[in-house]
Amino acid sequence: MDSSIPPAAVNRRTFVRASGAAAALAGAAGFTLGTPVAQAARPALKGKNKVILFQGDSITDAGWSREKGAQANTQAAMGNGYAWLAAAELLVDRPNDGLKIFNRGISGHKVFQLAERWQKDCLDIKPDVLSILIGVNDFWHTLSGGYKGTVATYEKDFHALIERTLRALPQVKLVICEPFVLKCGAVNDSWFPEFDRYRKAARGVATTYRTHWVPFQSMFDQALQYAPPAHWAGDGVHPSAAGASLMAHNWLKVVNGLA
Amino acid sequence: MDSSIPPAAVNRRTFVRASGAAAALAGAAGFTLGTPVAQAARPALKGKNKVILFQGDSITDAGWSREKGAQANTQAAMGNGYAWLAAAELLVDRPNDGLKIFNRGISGHKVFQLAERWQKDCLDIKPDVLSILIGVNDFWHTLSGGYKGTVATYEKDFHALIERTLRALPQVKLVICEPFVLKCGAVNDSWFPEFDRYRKAARGVATTYRTHWVPFQSMFDQALQYAPPAHWAGDGVHPSAAGASLMAHNWLKVVNGLA
Repeated sequence: MDSSIPPAAVNRRTFVRASGAAAALAGAAGFTLGTPVAQAARPALKGKNKVILFQGDSITDAGWSREKGAQANTQAAMGNGYAWLAAAELLVDRPNDGLKIFNRGISGHKVFQLAERWQKDCLDIKPDVLSILIGVNDFWHTLSGGYKGTVATYEKDFHALIERTLRALPQVKLVICEPFVLKCGAVNDSWFPEFDRYRKAARGVATTYRTHWVPFQSMFDQALQYAPPAHWAGDGVHPSAAGASLMAHNWLKVVNGLA
Repeated sequence: MDSSIPPAAVNRRTFVRASGAAAALAGAAGFTLGTPVAQAARPALKGKNKVILFQGDSITDAGWSREKGAQANTQAAMGNGYAWLAAAELLVDRPNDGLKIFNRGISGHKVFQLAERWQKDCLDIKPDVLSILIGVNDFWHTLSGGYKGTVATYEKDFHALIERTLRALPQVKLVICEPFVLKCGAVNDSWFPEFDRYRKAARGVATTYRTHWVPFQSMFDQALQYAPPAHWAGDGVHPSAAGASLMAHNWLKVVNGLA
């Protein structure tokens, strides 16, 4: 772990400051930092008029319209990926709850690039629920794009992004999604075991801040029993319709507190 | 209603014979035949080693492999539609429950054509859970295919199919899905109000036999707030990936008893 990352005790204090009620709940139930994250988190989507923001890279982006992105809820503004499928299911399930759902994933982005546009593309939107899926490019671009960052860079930047988010939006409910790949297309043995370290770093961020956690890699690993990798993601990175549907389902299961 | 359909009292006796425990439960809770169906039905998917069969027309078919259809659970055997998406979500959620999921939807079929192949394509498979989506061709082919059947034909054949199913498989849990269309592509004003009578007939079958009911039409009607009809089904009849994903989600919600 990068030495610049605050120790768990400091993060714990940050968390307590940010969300005292949640910490009390977690404490009462005997949760510790090692407890599975999804169990420690509470349902994120109770209540009316919530703003939900999806953040990430091309997997989240999926072609949302830059012209129409200021609108909430429409397909054009949400793209054609898991974020849109999850949004559509939520909106159809809860048409009278005043949900406003936005997508600000941008293709090719790494965590430091989220930070560069975080004020405009996250903090100004003031989400009640913020979902982040980031990490595959942080590794992939070291193989193919000349990017010099390491897993320590990723981890440090990701922790800093969450700290900054919690300072600006102390009540935000965070959903961190596990970066994933399938072994086909662009993904070969050269990705491993290094890519697994990025997954673990993301999980570490979720554990430190007791966020919701959507285990996409283990979901896809399970799904390989029922269809080959290319059926879920042709190039190993970008989900097919079936892959996106599975992601939406599991995202909702975690975020709705049904898991 | 066609005069050959048994009156409700007869169907009620058939139901009681077929599923005494369910009837007792329904009776104890004060349900009547007019009670919303989904509330009267119990969760269909508890337990291990259940066989689930999807039946219907092209919407269910979605290209399942006739060569590999004897296999359970694989994508090739399940096609690329809502049945496969629902199956994938179930299998990933419950990998250790020994579920076996089959698809026997056939493109172009009407309810009388299900009856023609029912022994081989349903009763011999001995499903624990049987999901049926049928009806759009029963109407559509009267517009474009020279088919002479009416809504009374559809209703009579559908009741007879369910009676036959319950005689052969008294313990089967039935899921009847609402036929639906979106007003785009092949679907124009000439479909209405006649098509609505087919939807009501399907609902009547579900009510009579107290099956699970998946309200796809009202789901899609709701979804039109968030994307235009063609985004859900380009030709008005066959769902897009987004439409199929929404169907799978709602099917699971009803069948898992979470609704």
